[in-house]
Amino acid sequence: MSIPARRPAPTAPAGAFLAACRREAVPHTPVWIMRQAGRYLPEYRELRARYDFATLTREPELAAEVTLQPLRRFALDAAILFSDIMTPVEGMGVPVEFSPGPVIAEPVRTRAQVEALRPLEPEVGVPFVLESVRLVRAALPSSVALIGFCGAPFTLLCYLVTGRGSKEFAPARVLLQRDPDTAQLLLARLADAMAAYLAAQARAGAQALMLFESWAGLLSPDDYARFARPAAARVLERLRPLGVPLIYFANDAASLLEHVARLPIDVAGIDWRQSLASARATLGPRIAVQGNLDPAALFAAPAVLRQRIDRVLAEAGPPLGHIFNLGHGIWPDTDPDAVALLVDHVHERTASRTGPAR
Amino acid sequence: MSIPARRPAPTAPAGAFLAACRREAVPHTPVWIMRQAGRYLPEYRELRARYDFATLTREPELAAEVTLQPLRRFALDAAILFSDIMTPVEGMGVPVEFSPGPVIAEPVRTRAQVEALRPLEPEVGVPFVLESVRLVRAALPSSVALIGFCGAPFTLLCYLVTGRGSKEFAPARVLLQRDPDTAQLLLARLADAMAAYLAAQARAGAQALMLFESWAGLLSPDDYARFARPAAARVLERLRPLGVPLIYFANDAASLLEHVARLPIDVAGIDWRQSLASARATLGPRIAVQGNLDPAALFAAPAVLRQRIDRVLAEAGPPLGHIFNLGHGIWPDTDPDAVALLVDHVHERTASRTGPAR
Repeated sequence: MSIPARRPAPTAPAGAFLAACRREAVPHTPVWIMRQAGRYLPEYRELRARYDFATLTREPELAAEVTLQPLRRFALDAAILFSDIMTPVEGMGVPVEFSPGPVIAEPVRTRAQVEALRPLEPEVGVPFVLESVRLVRAALPSSVALIGFCGAPFTLLCYLVTGRGSKEFAPARVLLQRDPDTAQLLLARLADAMAAYLAAQARAGAQALMLFESWAGLLSPDDYARFARPAAARVLERLRPLGVPLIYFANDAASLLEHVARLPIDVAGIDWRQSLASARATLGPRIAVQGNLDPAALFAAPAVLRQRIDRVLAEAGPPLGHIFNLGHGIWPDTDPDAVALLVDHVHERTASRTGPAR
Repeated sequence: MSIPARRPAPTAPAGAFLAACRREAVPHTPVWIMRQAGRYLPEYRELRARYDFATLTREPELAAEVTLQPLRRFALDAAILFSDIMTPVEGMGVPVEFSPGPVIAEPVRTRAQVEALRPLEPEVGVPFVLESVRLVRAALPSSVALIGFCGAPFTLLCYLVTGRGSKEFAPARVLLQRDPDTAQLLLARLADAMAAYLAAQARAGAQALMLFESWAGLLSPDDYARFARPAAARVLERLRPLGVPLIYFANDAASLLEHVARLPIDVAGIDWRQSLASARATLGPRIAVQGNLDPAALFAAPAVLRQRIDRVLAEAGPPLGHIFNLGHGIWPDTDPDAVALLVDHVHERTASRTGPAR
């Protein structure tokens, strides 16, 4: 299961990804892609035809294989564990099915249900995730970082309360308004569970930890500051002592970025809805940025795609502290050749710059 | 079908809504609610049990009745025609079904399909809409304004190309990347049709015209500036000579507001994701704002709801040029009593302020 990349990244002994997280000098702008392990790859679809989604996330050999698939094709600077943000919730005593998105047969809506949630003990509740992390880390060269991740508490609350994916997640947002105390208790329980979960992933070999706040954009700035941000901060503060870079990706959060800037994070993921220049202006020099090419751009003609990539690099501005990524997960019908073009173009374009920073 | 409001608005001889659109002095902050005619009202559900959605939009007597229902309950300052943004597209030769969202059996994806679209002649293609406008206008007191509306061209393109509602509208966004010329042609055709459609509504009695750019948030700022904004501008520029206030609501557009500020509009609708204060700062003093209470706030306890309303009023700042509204359409399971509280509280709170402006 080792993965000599088809086309190795330019020399990056210490790992360009981890250096960029810390805003240190890098040999090239590192690049990885949200959902890089997934349906756009024929080899993933082949495995998926034999195993259902839950099995792929729960069998360490399979999860590791899926995690490594894109690394064999592309000179990516980081791997991200193949899993689902709802996976650890099962370790809290809430059964989750995937059809194809997460479905919770009994949504968590009452104080009694929240109080009945079990604290997460990752080694007991989700040992297979930690085993997957160990397998992947052992298979990766030292120049490729392994990212562990979880859902941020508010985003997990959205699914737990609503019971499935939704455009509005109305039941979750109603809970915040009608019964804010129960909502805060649920967020605290989820924050404690996710802190334990990410810490266990780090102990197992994850070298950076990422929180996905997929549904940040459902909240007004006031409610984000009152509910989602403090819960994310509770996770992040527990993790800071580990010394592992912390990444927070709040989707659809252009008007929340002032609040994001005050989180104890190393890197902010930025979606495609705002320029990295404006994000940098709000986040300040302390926080690196990750992003933010529109996933739709991978469907443009190659010459146009290169222009779009160059534009993202230009908007990222200062060479330090930029990790190239899409602004959202890659779409299932993307051509893998477009991904190859993207990865190689980012490396070539940024390695050719002179100066000590790249 | 006349509508003496259950509780009349404070004296507003010239119409507080139209005055606010023009940033003139108002007796109170005017208020209306996106989707105020709809499923949260028992009397709507009663009608809907007897007629399907398409029939309600196509039979002038029924459309007028649905439009007027909320005006009988609440002292709203404006009515908005009950219709669907996809209704006029049928007048261009594209059949649309509702199940319950719009479904287009043959999505428009090729240049030949775009070229085959008929120009819209509103009096021929959608005469029933114009008849509905006439009926509603005749039934409304002079202090209540009637708003006509349409979908903005990019938002209509999303449905036409994708064929139905979607979270990502991937086929539409792929068309923009793969075949920008065809996308621009489609946007131009839609812009011309919508300009004719809104002008006809104004001639029939609509006193303000609103464009709904529901899917603005799918676009990067660059693509918004390249595709959606020029198409919306093409509609708006044709309408300016009518002298009717023009409202543009771009949903999820916090990072697009600089572009919105350069549109020839009187009012910008603002969703709940950013404060009206930050929106005003970007839009400048020339443009009035409409919004932006989170629809979820209507589920809070009355005392909390009042606080949230006061907060929106405070963030709106200067008394001139604010139309109170939700930041998105009202949810179907909202309690009508919360709407009554909202409308009355906005009026009472703003009428009690001293000074000539209110």
